[in-house]
Amino acid sequence: MSRDPIRKAVRQLARLPGIGEKSATRLVYWMLTNGDTIPGQLAEALADLQETVTECSVCCTITTKDANPCTLCRRGGRDEAVLLVVEHPQDVLAFERTGEFKGRYHVLHGAISPLDGVTPDRLRIQPMLQRLQAGTITEVIVATDPDVEGDATAMYLARLLKPLGTRTSRLAHGISVGTNIEYADTTSLARALENRRDL
Amino acid sequence: MSRDPIRKAVRQLARLPGIGEKSATRLVYWMLTNGDTIPGQLAEALADLQETVTECSVCCTITTKDANPCTLCRRGGRDEAVLLVVEHPQDVLAFERTGEFKGRYHVLHGAISPLDGVTPDRLRIQPMLQRLQAGTITEVIVATDPDVEGDATAMYLARLLKPLGTRTSRLAHGISVGTNIEYADTTSLARALENRRDL
Repeated sequence: MSRDPIRKAVRQLARLPGIGEKSATRLVYWMLTNGDTIPGQLAEALADLQETVTECSVCCTITTKDANPCTLCRRGGRDEAVLLVVEHPQDVLAFERTGEFKGRYHVLHGAISPLDGVTPDRLRIQPMLQRLQAGTITEVIVATDPDVEGDATAMYLARLLKPLGTRTSRLAHGISVGTNIEYADTTSLARALENRRDL
Repeated sequence: MSRDPIRKAVRQLARLPGIGEKSATRLVYWMLTNGDTIPGQLAEALADLQETVTECSVCCTITTKDANPCTLCRRGGRDEAVLLVVEHPQDVLAFERTGEFKGRYHVLHGAISPLDGVTPDRLRIQPMLQRLQAGTITEVIVATDPDVEGDATAMYLARLLKPLGTRTSRLAHGISVGTNIEYADTTSLARALENRRDL
């Protein structure tokens, strides 16, 4: 136990993206003055998170240890021929909200960005290739973000998949350049999926 | 343990001010994909916070159970004649950073705001009056925020203290109207303190 629990909590909160030391301080004092149970309940939720969460052995999204493969991978009635490849687990949720996609997902956990040290071997590309070897997938839709890293990743995957004879397509630019797929509105996402183009 | 630890963590984080469900989702996924230990360390810090933190029995600021009265209240060499009354514990830190104030502090934990249900009896005004009864305090500086609630609180305290013969002053408007004292820059705070005016 730290000698100064307030400073310790501030330091931990300030590690999160978009939360600086001033915001973290404000949050900690807010918790302390707005209900005794809030820090404890948040602590419990975060401890559970760390203990129970793992990567899905099929699509690499984030799931719980007692639901692996994840709910979506186990669900029947999906089109086994189409694989939608996204950067982040939350992108899967964004597509599920559109209700337009009935195939399977694969999560790369990032996009190629040599400047940030993210080379292709840091992404979940090998597990994706293993899924393709089963032979049921005939089309891969690359749904990376429409930015430099997302473009580079899409080109890399297209080059990788061409020799395998797998049709490779990318989302249409129904999503505006610079958008985070995670924050895109449902209609734009549905349209982008509908108008996808071959790579 | 919740059936869906991710949703549970999102829900708890989204209770914090300024964090909506989308930001909370982003934070949770960021924690899960940027280092295995982050949620656990944050959880530990927050659990410590809930277990160890309490209100100072003298000035009502937030302190730890093993440091009560708080460090500032126990520190010698302070001017026992002047009491600076603030809304929030973090305001104490803001004044300490100026290095201009050498007296004692008292934390009200809010400002009078009938519309939000904050009546004077919800604030730590009684413990403040008890400190005044000891007789060493000759001046009370009301350093509430320069907004409607802060003004109302200052007027209320001035009326309350006038019969006791205690000099009551308020911060000069060196701090611009609408500012949160917690976020005010050090120089403005020091100037506001220097130019305080009687109420």
